[in-house]
Amino acid sequence: MSNQSARIYFDNAATTSLDPVVLEAMMPYFTDKFGNPSSIYSYGRESRLAIETARKTVAKILNAHPAEIFFTSGGTESSNTAITAAIRDLGCRHIITSPIEHHATSHTVEHVFHSGEAALSEVKLLPNGHVDMEDLERLLANSSEKCLVTLMHANNEIGNMLDLHAVGNLCKMYGAIFHSDTVQTVGHFPFDLRNTPVHFITGAGHKFHGPKGVGILYINENVKIKPYIHGGAQERNMRAGTENLYGIVGFAKALELATAQFEEHSSYIKGLKIYMMEKVKSVVRGVTFNGDTLGRSLYTVLSVSFPKTEKSEMILFNLDMNNICVSGGSACTSGADQGSHVIRAINNNPNQVTVRFSFSKHNTKEEIDFVVEKLKEMI
Amino acid sequence: MSNQSARIYFDNAATTSLDPVVLEAMMPYFTDKFGNPSSIYSYGRESRLAIETARKTVAKILNAHPAEIFFTSGGTESSNTAITAAIRDLGCRHIITSPIEHHATSHTVEHVFHSGEAALSEVKLLPNGHVDMEDLERLLANSSEKCLVTLMHANNEIGNMLDLHAVGNLCKMYGAIFHSDTVQTVGHFPFDLRNTPVHFITGAGHKFHGPKGVGILYINENVKIKPYIHGGAQERNMRAGTENLYGIVGFAKALELATAQFEEHSSYIKGLKIYMMEKVKSVVRGVTFNGDTLGRSLYTVLSVSFPKTEKSEMILFNLDMNNICVSGGSACTSGADQGSHVIRAINNNPNQVTVRFSFSKHNTKEEIDFVVEKLKEMI
Ligand SMILES: Cc1ncc(COP(=O)(O)O)c(C=O)c1O
Ligand SMILES: Cc1ncc(COP(=O)(O)O)c(C=O)c1O
Repeated sequence: MSNQSARIYFDNAATTSLDPVVLEAMMPYFTDKFGNPSSIYSYGRESRLAIETARKTVAKILNAHPAEIFFTSGGTESSNTAITAAIRDLGCRHIITSPIEHHATSHTVEHVFHSGEAALSEVKLLPNGHVDMEDLERLLANSSEKCLVTLMHANNEIGNMLDLHAVGNLCKMYGAIFHSDTVQTVGHFPFDLRNTPVHFITGAGHKFHGPKGVGILYINENVKIKPYIHGGAQERNMRAGTENLYGIVGFAKALELATAQFEEHSSYIKGLKIYMMEKVKSVVRGVTFNGDTLGRSLYTVLSVSFPKTEKSEMILFNLDMNNICVSGGSACTSGADQGSHVIRAINNNPNQVTVRFSFSKHNTKEEIDFVVEKLKEMI
Repeated sequence: MSNQSARIYFDNAATTSLDPVVLEAMMPYFTDKFGNPSSIYSYGRESRLAIETARKTVAKILNAHPAEIFFTSGGTESSNTAITAAIRDLGCRHIITSPIEHHATSHTVEHVFHSGEAALSEVKLLPNGHVDMEDLERLLANSSEKCLVTLMHANNEIGNMLDLHAVGNLCKMYGAIFHSDTVQTVGHFPFDLRNTPVHFITGAGHKFHGPKGVGILYINENVKIKPYIHGGAQERNMRAGTENLYGIVGFAKALELATAQFEEHSSYIKGLKIYMMEKVKSVVRGVTFNGDTLGRSLYTVLSVSFPKTEKSEMILFNLDMNNICVSGGSACTSGADQGSHVIRAINNNPNQVTVRFSFSKHNTKEEIDFVVEKLKEMI
């Protein structure tokens, strides 16, 4: 076996496979229907219609107005747009964030901070990795400036989920703007944006079996911002550039499919996560789990810390040798040497090796059995 | 005939059809090879390899270093990145541009200007629409600040082409940074960037039978800028966000195909342009052509002005009714009422109606015959 075994993909928080039904929906736009959506003749109007239909589909599923949904090149661009606009257009002069945000948020925030446009505060975390709500309220209450609160809905490394309503209500009370990176939850959880006190949320198609290179930014109709990418009048003057027509159509189709089978898939995947947790615990001595694993947490993500030994330090390498795809931290930092800023923030234990297993509807208990068997051999 | 006739697509400057060979090259990444290029296991490395191979292909064709090529979401993002960085990171405090730039340039420049970060000058145009090089030199010589010169290589509405070397050498003489919007020329003309005095050029896949939603930014190795989109370490820390893997692979393949048959296609398409020009002239009295049509001009674009009459004012509508796709100005503004800023700048004649015909290798003389026949009926 070993190198010859079929690949096991347990890294669905990094990216997911494209659903063949989504690809099928995209195909006409790769072939016949290539018109520029901004062109006024029938051929362009066809493309325009596809985009506006996609927008309506997305809006309906998230319970937002179509005019609140903007297509972008991905979750990262969406967060850059929201954070920059909150400072530039909405008068925020103080950013409150957490030490465990995705780099799409934290690096944008740092850029704004270093250019002197806003003060910066980091909210404290509880031992289980959740945001300390009392500290958040203290920061908001003590701020002399209008605040932007940017806190992710679900952490991509440890799975912890924020209470959007609780944070949104606090923001409302203190007149703050609230942006939430929902890249790990759009397509995985139901949203009801018309009844959620949030100004900006983000999504990325490739996290729920849609295409890479396309995302959304939800902008609540009560906030008015300028574009981040300037140029043509696309996206109602909010995001210039010829639209990624196939990507947009694929995003909507993937969200539609995810929503249709949401209950079924979420309980199935949650079952896998718990099964893996139990199995690993029974096999590896001294193993711990990061975050609020069985509480407010993504059903897709399981973050496991193994006691550091010569063998466990080779674990990522050896899993790869066995065609098992997992991640040390997030995909974006997995190439880097510095380790995970998230794990460091919540659990600064140098005597551990952390592995993120993340699941999709395509995974099975048999795969988990195989992986745990391998882990046993390796450790 | 009329409504029932096959579609004739003469709007290739707005967007082009995707080459089936390009789609074929993209397909494996829509199906099997979906790994995140930032993931360290074999599966991610496969995707990383596809991106780096695409980068090398593009670099080789443009005669640049692979390290100078960055993939973006399109021409618009590329120009936003270059212009913003020239001000923010390279110390430019004065932008010199022209009144006929694409909105991706002009709106970005206006944004920077209105935020007070740079002064703004517009170079004069000659009657044929070319940049007045003496005026450009005067502006450079009289500037007390470091300049960014942003001038497009080829105008998308009238086809006029800039002498990159002449402008680049002037910029060099006066220590200016030079950005050129080459969206209409990448994939249509040979480039030799190692021997061209330019700091930034841009490209968009969908203008040469590649995919929408992907572009490049060339950044000369001698200039060091910060990213415009912040987040993960993708594109060597220059452009964050999970890569549009298929788009990148498609961009490179489309450029490869365009380059392989460049001589053949360019002379064929140029033949179509000249044929159309002669035909229209012989059929419609008082017709004129905008720009340096037979001189330094795109072989793909023919901008025709018809004398304004009740009939000619309906021309775009009637061409559409006949399934003929053309454009009044650029695609990005074709929905808007304000007309073309380019035509206004070079030929402010309210008694004309302007139509852009733009060709590709898929067009034929028979199509031109048909269109000119229709024009005769309409006018
Ligand atoms: C000259 C020129 N520059 C820039 C662009 C913008 O490219 P994109 O819309 O692909 O971002 C276009 C086409 O739309 C163009 O013709
Ligand atoms: C929580 C979170 N935010 C943002 C992103 C960025 O999304 P993208 O890389 O698609 O731009 C990711 C994934 O990469 C993520 O997991």
